[in-house]
Amino acid sequence: MSQILIRHLFGPGPTNPYPEATEALARPLLGHLDPQFLEIMDSACDGLRAVWGTENRRTLPLSATGSAGMEAAFVNFVNPGDPVVIAVNGLFGERMCDVACRCGADVIRVDFPFGEAVDAEKVAAAHPSPKIIAAVHAETSTGVRSDIAALGRIKGDALLLVDAVTSIGGIELKADEWGIDIGYAGTQKCLGVAPGLAPFTVSERAWQRRVEKPRSWYLDLDMLGGYVGEASGSSRTYHHTAPVAMVASLEAGLRRVLDEGLDAVRERHEAAGRALQDGVEAMGLELFAAQGHRLPELTTVKVPEGVDSAAVRRELLEKYDIEIGAGVKECANTVWRIGLMGPNAAPESVTLILGALREVLGR
Amino acid sequence: MSQILIRHLFGPGPTNPYPEATEALARPLLGHLDPQFLEIMDSACDGLRAVWGTENRRTLPLSATGSAGMEAAFVNFVNPGDPVVIAVNGLFGERMCDVACRCGADVIRVDFPFGEAVDAEKVAAAHPSPKIIAAVHAETSTGVRSDIAALGRIKGDALLLVDAVTSIGGIELKADEWGIDIGYAGTQKCLGVAPGLAPFTVSERAWQRRVEKPRSWYLDLDMLGGYVGEASGSSRTYHHTAPVAMVASLEAGLRRVLDEGLDAVRERHEAAGRALQDGVEAMGLELFAAQGHRLPELTTVKVPEGVDSAAVRRELLEKYDIEIGAGVKECANTVWRIGLMGPNAAPESVTLILGALREVLGR
Repeated sequence: MSQILIRHLFGPGPTNPYPEATEALARPLLGHLDPQFLEIMDSACDGLRAVWGTENRRTLPLSATGSAGMEAAFVNFVNPGDPVVIAVNGLFGERMCDVACRCGADVIRVDFPFGEAVDAEKVAAAHPSPKIIAAVHAETSTGVRSDIAALGRIKGDALLLVDAVTSIGGIELKADEWGIDIGYAGTQKCLGVAPGLAPFTVSERAWQRRVEKPRSWYLDLDMLGGYVGEASGSSRTYHHTAPVAMVASLEAGLRRVLDEGLDAVRERHEAAGRALQDGVEAMGLELFAAQGHRLPELTTVKVPEGVDSAAVRRELLEKYDIEIGAGVKECANTVWRIGLMGPNAAPESVTLILGALREVLGR
Repeated sequence: MSQILIRHLFGPGPTNPYPEATEALARPLLGHLDPQFLEIMDSACDGLRAVWGTENRRTLPLSATGSAGMEAAFVNFVNPGDPVVIAVNGLFGERMCDVACRCGADVIRVDFPFGEAVDAEKVAAAHPSPKIIAAVHAETSTGVRSDIAALGRIKGDALLLVDAVTSIGGIELKADEWGIDIGYAGTQKCLGVAPGLAPFTVSERAWQRRVEKPRSWYLDLDMLGGYVGEASGSSRTYHHTAPVAMVASLEAGLRRVLDEGLDAVRERHEAAGRALQDGVEAMGLELFAAQGHRLPELTTVKVPEGVDSAAVRRELLEKYDIEIGAGVKECANTVWRIGLMGPNAAPESVTLILGALREVLGR
């Protein structure tokens, strides 16, 4: 293999992990039923409760990436024919529709322009009594934040299902206060841990309405509960071999975040994102996401006319070891996505990416 | 957290990883679309082809643990009502029945006593024209090896689906020569890598008969093929964020295994297992798995009458930092499972576990 590179991961994720999270990955491995590992798992679940803003007993890391969290969210709660209202304002809302369809849902899709936020009133008007209302908190494809609390206020009898992959640990997230019933997230964004696990949480209210025998064995929350989340001590039963190294890494990353303090971490993301967005505009570039709904942790920038989007990304990668993301779908060549997440939410990252962009674009 | 322990993982898995695999986990993280990461992914797929004994183009690590491999094996190839013959001689054969049922299969279960091998003739007689015949190569619950080549000879028009979680990298495995059409495995056993990925392979014959739109989005092999396995270079399309650290670790572990040489690695597992089994019998203990079908990498031992199985395991863990496994289901308290896999397939591990057992049992 070629020499090992040190990349600045300023794309939409993964981000560079916290050193504590990397160090934990390389620790001597423990068995998945070892008492010391079960302590680590419990501590990880406690940490996840804190970053979700929940007291849900059923809060745990699923043994796969964030997209498997999306699948678990639908497969455990959708019976064939259930009406499911999905707000779509980006790629991940679209993906929800595909996943829900495969579970047999009667999907009612409510579209919003890419780059704009979800409007709760329009979602409420879509169906009189859906089983589930689903939305993405922070759209990774567009850099937009939607108001989840507003969806909680209009949900009525429905369960509120939320994608928090790019919001968790980066911006305010209050699962209990906002009325989130089913939530999934990722580790590789603002939590500053490598990808491989899906932080998941379920309210008691949702639990009562779960599918009795989900089509997925691997993501069956009831079976998973025998190993983690509900069980403790010697009552734990084996379901599958947990990815022990990844769980240890998540636990260490969460401790790093909670030691710094959730508010402080969010302020750091806010400050870095604000400085980046100001700097980008000062350079004469335009932001893509609608004003007032911009995520600090993920900035979308319109590619200036006449500039080759891919060539700029390639130069950033090859000359500066900086990764930024392309846009998605119809915006593939017209938008860049710049993430400052986890340890990269820092002034030096802002200075570096702005400086490099200025040099490459000649501005 | 308490002090970091160094455990000797002599249970049914995970095993202690090779140092190369651990080192790769802690390397600076790469983005999942970084050209250097895609090189690592390609190298991992090449390495997997070697340990599977296949030239299948569709050979890749799925982004979840071995049990998700089992789910992918059924969900991508079973349409509701398809007859699926499953040979059951342990827990993992039973799990296959559950997973296949959830996919809507018409499951024809062929039972064999736990501790004995699968008999191909009995499997062949179970149904005149199944779509799939499924079996476990190395039953992790009982320590038994079954003859997969014999199943390949009787499969007729059926697809042969094989669980190679505990066999891959440890004993002979020849997917192409034996006629395996769909295979899944794990990383945390004889490959000597932490748990978190499921090595997977699909023959062209199986590919032609796949489900068009599987119920699982996350494990949809057709969509995954756009990112890995079939695609290359800039034609790769994003499906989900790959667990980059785990893939880098797998790649390093595979290189370690292939540098030593597959035959040499298997001989090492064979020698360690044989020495352990001889030593256990010399101590007056009985082996559980049927003679002639014993796995070298996973030895099952009957707990002597009057001995408290759990107390012995606890003493091994607390006094010697040695983990061994309990038995499964009806054998939970009457069988121990001792694995010598990956780097632990070595003379010093045999000496250590035999010595510790002798001391704890007073033999």
